[in-house]
Amino acid sequence: MNPVELITRKRDGGELALEELRAFVSGYLAEDGSVMEGQMGAFLMAGVLKGFTLAEARALTTVLLESGDRLDLSDLRGPTIDKHSTGGVGDGTTLVVAPLLAAAGAQVVKLSGRGLGHTGGTLDKLEAIPGFSVQLSGEAIMAQAEAIGCVVAAQTGDLVPADKALYALRDVTATVESTALIASSVMSKKLASGAGTIVLDVKAGDGAFMGTVEDASALAELCVAIGNDAGRRTRALVTDMNTPLGSGIGNGLEVIEVVETLRTAPEGRFAEVCLALATTGLAAATGIDPADARDRLVGVWESGAALETLQRMIEAQGGDPAVCDRPREVMPVAPVVLDVPSPTSGLVARLPAKAVGLLSMSLGAGRQHANDDVDPAVGVELLVQEGDAVEAGQPLATIHARTDDAAAAAAARLTELVQLGEDAAVPPTILRTIEA
Amino acid sequence: MNPVELITRKRDGGELALEELRAFVSGYLAEDGSVMEGQMGAFLMAGVLKGFTLAEARALTTVLLESGDRLDLSDLRGPTIDKHSTGGVGDGTTLVVAPLLAAAGAQVVKLSGRGLGHTGGTLDKLEAIPGFSVQLSGEAIMAQAEAIGCVVAAQTGDLVPADKALYALRDVTATVESTALIASSVMSKKLASGAGTIVLDVKAGDGAFMGTVEDASALAELCVAIGNDAGRRTRALVTDMNTPLGSGIGNGLEVIEVVETLRTAPEGRFAEVCLALATTGLAAATGIDPADARDRLVGVWESGAALETLQRMIEAQGGDPAVCDRPREVMPVAPVVLDVPSPTSGLVARLPAKAVGLLSMSLGAGRQHANDDVDPAVGVELLVQEGDAVEAGQPLATIHARTDDAAAAAAARLTELVQLGEDAAVPPTILRTIEA
Repeated sequence: MNPVELITRKRDGGELALEELRAFVSGYLAEDGSVMEGQMGAFLMAGVLKGFTLAEARALTTVLLESGDRLDLSDLRGPTIDKHSTGGVGDGTTLVVAPLLAAAGAQVVKLSGRGLGHTGGTLDKLEAIPGFSVQLSGEAIMAQAEAIGCVVAAQTGDLVPADKALYALRDVTATVESTALIASSVMSKKLASGAGTIVLDVKAGDGAFMGTVEDASALAELCVAIGNDAGRRTRALVTDMNTPLGSGIGNGLEVIEVVETLRTAPEGRFAEVCLALATTGLAAATGIDPADARDRLVGVWESGAALETLQRMIEAQGGDPAVCDRPREVMPVAPVVLDVPSPTSGLVARLPAKAVGLLSMSLGAGRQHANDDVDPAVGVELLVQEGDAVEAGQPLATIHARTDDAAAAAAARLTELVQLGEDAAVPPTILRTIEA
Repeated sequence: MNPVELITRKRDGGELALEELRAFVSGYLAEDGSVMEGQMGAFLMAGVLKGFTLAEARALTTVLLESGDRLDLSDLRGPTIDKHSTGGVGDGTTLVVAPLLAAAGAQVVKLSGRGLGHTGGTLDKLEAIPGFSVQLSGEAIMAQAEAIGCVVAAQTGDLVPADKALYALRDVTATVESTALIASSVMSKKLASGAGTIVLDVKAGDGAFMGTVEDASALAELCVAIGNDAGRRTRALVTDMNTPLGSGIGNGLEVIEVVETLRTAPEGRFAEVCLALATTGLAAATGIDPADARDRLVGVWESGAALETLQRMIEAQGGDPAVCDRPREVMPVAPVVLDVPSPTSGLVARLPAKAVGLLSMSLGAGRQHANDDVDPAVGVELLVQEGDAVEAGQPLATIHARTDDAAAAAAARLTELVQLGEDAAVPPTILRTIEA
């Protein structure tokens, strides 16, 4: 393996074979100088600018997957389903989808991450629940999946270490933006997590990594191709992230929304995406008709079985189960809670996802750097969404803040962000479904 | 300075300002982690694939130049002229041009490099002369320039260290191939060397770094623009390197050719390029008419003054001055000298530069790796050139080798390389002249 020859080929638009990618990535990870950091940086940039073929994306996924351990879910009795979101604002879907699928007879072992920038992370949301632990051993994960049907935990250290190392370099070399690199990163983790069925929620919009439906669809299609090629039933939805998905934007506020959503009938944008993801996963995993899968899921939702499963999961992972009965009492409360009245009457023409996510981050709910702490109580609770009619003085949102000053600044910013007009279209939420 | 932001901008085709390039390169050289090797690798690849503007090429030259010492030639009495070749096969022009210009009243301080791959290096050629030293102090360089008018020595350690560091990374990251990066590397060294006039020989062809006249012209134009912008009279010739320039290809053989060329009238491809480079430099440095400059140079050539100047330079640098009287006796002789007869009669249709350079390298005259030793005696001495008519049995070349086996293998290879046909065009040697 000659690193310069491989970099040159990629620079000139050529294709690398599995063996070559394996040797190149292994040489980098070995830290023995056989592939220097500068060579990997140059290679990644060449790949970002010249692109990777489908075969290369598959090969990269294989190379990343081979670098570490894999969960073996074959001892579990039910169909195993994993779910992944590319990240958005007000996106607590995992905390609904996992218990919903478990209550419907599937088993969900979901290894999640933390939030960065304007997007939240599932682990941060769960840790907002008093006592909840995301650090589980492999044995504890399997035992809980068997007993309750769902577990959401931190990725163990030895799962796809190559992805972790490469992502760290991509992050500082402006080489994150490659559909193939993103897809191989996502899919190597999903394949290592062992589920037979994988359902992906690829977000599109200003609050998402992929700004356009076209880019999101390309990523979704590539992930689905890689997953199906690896023998997993893989499906993807492309969903809107131009405006926040849920009303809670902040770690504890999103848990409250999850509980309140599961306590009511599946209605509204957030519930719609949760139900669609679960339906897609259950139908793919079991082979039943999507309409039947949906009926079954609505059944466990409305019967309270899904909420009960969530409660059992929270209890099993050390969290206070009362959160499912009295979420607003159990979840930590911010010292300052401030309503934001609408300055005028009109229709909500625009409520931008990224800006609201950044606003919540500025209150302490999110991280600027990977090692920052997050505040479980603060954030924004939206009381309107795009398309709603509002009266002057009607609250647009509630700000949950640490200080009066922070609350006042956030309220002023939110008033700017909610654009009122005479016309407002209700945007579609589920934009595309990709099966193969 | 945010490295990721600068890399991102270059990745997306944007332009960086002088201050930004200075901070980025300085951060890399500081080795304090402020700019990681991976970041420089990604940046260089983005630059290779997206290009650099003229302003960026100028700025990069400035940044490299600022990184080290500069020679101050202002105490020298005559016009100072520097010369640079982008490297070729059978290209001993420096050893003719430097004494020629010195004999005509200019002063030439030429800091040279070593050969790599199929191209030779001026220092290796000089070191083939028994006793010759290329390691001179700054004081010795200035004293010799004043006394004799020309000096050819190794680059001192503190001249453009940033170029050295960046080139080492470019070499292993497939990012050498950028006109702006090459131009800034060449011109930073030329500007640091202090001459008021710079004449460049940019080679084009299969034996050159730039394969086409268009690419070579673009590099020449960029170098000339950077040099003139920096206040130096800068000129470039684009010359052919599809076929070896001289007949000697090998370190000592090229010295022999230099001496034999200066002992006869300026005729033939090699002499033509030497005289054109010197004429261009002298006319630019003095402002005299090129025809008058040429006449003056032909005068010192034919009078023997140029050869005498070369002899004085060799003596001053510890070399045996008798090389200018009896070159074939003084220069080291290879143990095996083998004529290569032409298998048939015909016209020499093709005699490829790179392949002949590689053949000479395989005999021991060149380096595969930077730390390899070179053999001063071995190489190929061509007895024909493109366009010549040859008879069957007539020697095409003489092989100078260490062993019989090496000589036989080289002779067989050379027979393959010299393509005989019924038609043969004599290729032009000087392809373009670039003044601004």
